[in-house]
Amino acid sequence: MLTTEIPYKTYLGEDELPKAWYNVRPVMKNKPAPLLNPATHQPATLDELSRVFCTELAKQELNETDEYIPIPQEVRDFYKMYRPSPLVRAYFLEKALGTPAHIYYKFEGNNTSGSHKLNSAIAQAYYAKKQGLKSVTTETGAGQWGTALSMACAFFGLDCHVYMVKCSYDQKPHRREVMRTYGASVTPSPSDTTAVGRKILAENPGTAGSLGCAISEAVETALNTPDCRYVLGSVLSQVLVHQTIIGLETKAALEKNGVTPDVIIGCAGGGSNLGGLITPFVGDFIQGKNNCRFIAVEPAACPSLTRGRYAYDYCDTGMVCPLAKMYTLGCTYMPAAIHAGGLRYHGMSSILSQLYDDKILEATSVKQTQVFEAARLFARTEGTLPAPESSHAIYAAIQEALRCKETGKAENIVFGLTGTGYFDMMSYQKFNDGIMTDYVPTDEEILKSLSRLPNV
Amino acid sequence: MLTTEIPYKTYLGEDELPKAWYNVRPVMKNKPAPLLNPATHQPATLDELSRVFCTELAKQELNETDEYIPIPQEVRDFYKMYRPSPLVRAYFLEKALGTPAHIYYKFEGNNTSGSHKLNSAIAQAYYAKKQGLKSVTTETGAGQWGTALSMACAFFGLDCHVYMVKCSYDQKPHRREVMRTYGASVTPSPSDTTAVGRKILAENPGTAGSLGCAISEAVETALNTPDCRYVLGSVLSQVLVHQTIIGLETKAALEKNGVTPDVIIGCAGGGSNLGGLITPFVGDFIQGKNNCRFIAVEPAACPSLTRGRYAYDYCDTGMVCPLAKMYTLGCTYMPAAIHAGGLRYHGMSSILSQLYDDKILEATSVKQTQVFEAARLFARTEGTLPAPESSHAIYAAIQEALRCKETGKAENIVFGLTGTGYFDMMSYQKFNDGIMTDYVPTDEEILKSLSRLPNV
Repeated sequence: MLTTEIPYKTYLGEDELPKAWYNVRPVMKNKPAPLLNPATHQPATLDELSRVFCTELAKQELNETDEYIPIPQEVRDFYKMYRPSPLVRAYFLEKALGTPAHIYYKFEGNNTSGSHKLNSAIAQAYYAKKQGLKSVTTETGAGQWGTALSMACAFFGLDCHVYMVKCSYDQKPHRREVMRTYGASVTPSPSDTTAVGRKILAENPGTAGSLGCAISEAVETALNTPDCRYVLGSVLSQVLVHQTIIGLETKAALEKNGVTPDVIIGCAGGGSNLGGLITPFVGDFIQGKNNCRFIAVEPAACPSLTRGRYAYDYCDTGMVCPLAKMYTLGCTYMPAAIHAGGLRYHGMSSILSQLYDDKILEATSVKQTQVFEAARLFARTEGTLPAPESSHAIYAAIQEALRCKETGKAENIVFGLTGTGYFDMMSYQKFNDGIMTDYVPTDEEILKSLSRLPNV
Repeated sequence: MLTTEIPYKTYLGEDELPKAWYNVRPVMKNKPAPLLNPATHQPATLDELSRVFCTELAKQELNETDEYIPIPQEVRDFYKMYRPSPLVRAYFLEKALGTPAHIYYKFEGNNTSGSHKLNSAIAQAYYAKKQGLKSVTTETGAGQWGTALSMACAFFGLDCHVYMVKCSYDQKPHRREVMRTYGASVTPSPSDTTAVGRKILAENPGTAGSLGCAISEAVETALNTPDCRYVLGSVLSQVLVHQTIIGLETKAALEKNGVTPDVIIGCAGGGSNLGGLITPFVGDFIQGKNNCRFIAVEPAACPSLTRGRYAYDYCDTGMVCPLAKMYTLGCTYMPAAIHAGGLRYHGMSSILSQLYDDKILEATSVKQTQVFEAARLFARTEGTLPAPESSHAIYAAIQEALRCKETGKAENIVFGLTGTGYFDMMSYQKFNDGIMTDYVPTDEEILKSLSRLPNV
């Protein structure tokens, strides 16, 4: 029997579910740089953003004044179906590592979308419904975001049109069928339903598609469809704000147990889960209320923070979305086909980029075989089979715990377990068969795409 | 906003986790008939059962005197990683149906095995480890049980050898890889590793295998391997006992909310989840402490309670396991290849069979297209994408709720949501594409296999 002064899982009550999201921008000393209109290179206005995004979401994108943004009651009701999510004490992982550290993880995988993506999807669908829209469009690669949005749209009775990168559509039929079960229409991209899709198909017959192309098709469809807008699952500040439900719950659960975190760790692709987890703590840090470390973990194959440049760049490969100032590898950078599809993004959220530049946020990168080794240890000790994306955070948490083993310090390590790996078993198979390889880009590769950054 | 006098999800605290499993046999007026030795047709002795099963589990199989069986501390510690599981009030499903009924479901899918199977797997692995065994063998069809056992064995450091029906091994590689990730060795059955496997391969080259053959291979391997036993995931009374953790938690959560159930519903294959859910309430019913109805829901393609005969039969198609008196379609009955693989079993737990014969348990059968319609409605309203097996219970719960809509009575309907459908998306695809068909056996088909029942 283990000594368990703290519960394995801390569940907040439904009455403790946060009533407002957190927005760290008001307390940041150096604000993130504004989004720029891609045509004029001037800061994007509410009016411009509202053509592509729901008006309320465009307002949230620009909101640098309100530290708390109320969560609508309808969204809170939906949240109650799968939230508050558990904060878990990883007793068995600690035991396996022989560390004096106390390891906690916030688990976001207990919903059908299998990840934290649902937290923002339901908010975005709600504002679309409230604005009187009939439908939304989006793109999806591996499918987590598309699944989450399909669930959210089914709940509010909105039509949902997902452009799914063709190779995923063909090779990952399972998530596609989840989306269809929730009533979404799923189109393999590139398709002949848009001008940009037809152009790409004419130039590259038989192409397997790309996320950049799928974004372009989704945006074109949104602009050409009455009562329709485009929605996005990461990178944007509005998405980070919605995801703070993770960090706010984590904070409340830690406080309930009288625990002060020493280090908080999250995987980072576009940055929405990491930002959502840490920014409520970062706000306190900036105001001198804690002395916590914050660590972003990114794949060695797509190292935007650790090897990218802090500059204005396009958010999408198709160069139709606004420009953001961020740590980026360049929007033409093509990351290797690693198994953490959700982390294959060339840039990083403007908020997180500024925090990294201000040295409030640390960053590290990990190779994928190391990631799967950490995932396997975690599965066997803690039971839950983690997503490859989430396993980046597991790896870094283990490293911190082993450091504590050397120093003998019982630090409190918190990490975000963003999702489960049930739709990633073919990646696990590669690992189980011992045929998974690593990929680290050369400096030349990165410099090549950085040389094409827009002139802003 | 909905009126929510009762929480969406009721979580018991870890200190409220039951300390003992429930065994209904002591309070049953008519006891289930004893297992028989297949060679002698005499009641199987502890000694005989202990050759195949762990000794402590064989004792539990024969235990008709202890109403409560203590849960070992190590098993309770493991349970704390995913239990107590939530009791959910289906507010959004109620709203969609416009019923005055209050619908509750006990959700067992929040663990990597994706179902309730883990509740017994961890207990069986624990007793195997305690007995000093080095390994266990089992069979798996769709893979839920094999996955659960692999997780349990990884936790206790036991070798786990799973014989997986060959067509599943080939067509459902995802669950196979989950098992391998947890360190299990998975062999497609029939295989050349056993005498029975070689015999079947010689007679039927290229066969896709069957559960009956896989059981025979697993039992043969257990008998021929030092420090090894065979374990089973359903049907047996010991498994029902372990699964009562479901019903005991349900009871505690309902009592916490001051709710008295009017009807409790579960899907039924071998009967372990249904028995685990209802027997703590059935014990009270027999003792006049409640007036609840209990409903078993089985597939129309495999209707052992509703169309079978109450007789002694083999538990396995290979006829190597003990004989059990149960409602059965005959162990040579080959159910159609429906998508609820976990319910394709020819017989029913002896305990449940006796309760059905005593008219304490009701039963109904459902066609699979009806089941998937219920599953889709549930997914879109309640968020969680259910397993096809569990969706049998959803269908019946909806029927009860619609009956309440007619009578105007606000009855409390409770059902077991045994698991998630994440590894069943190819079945959902058939449904989404409108090409799923139903199958109901003719009387002749059933009479044919019943005519081959053993002469006991």
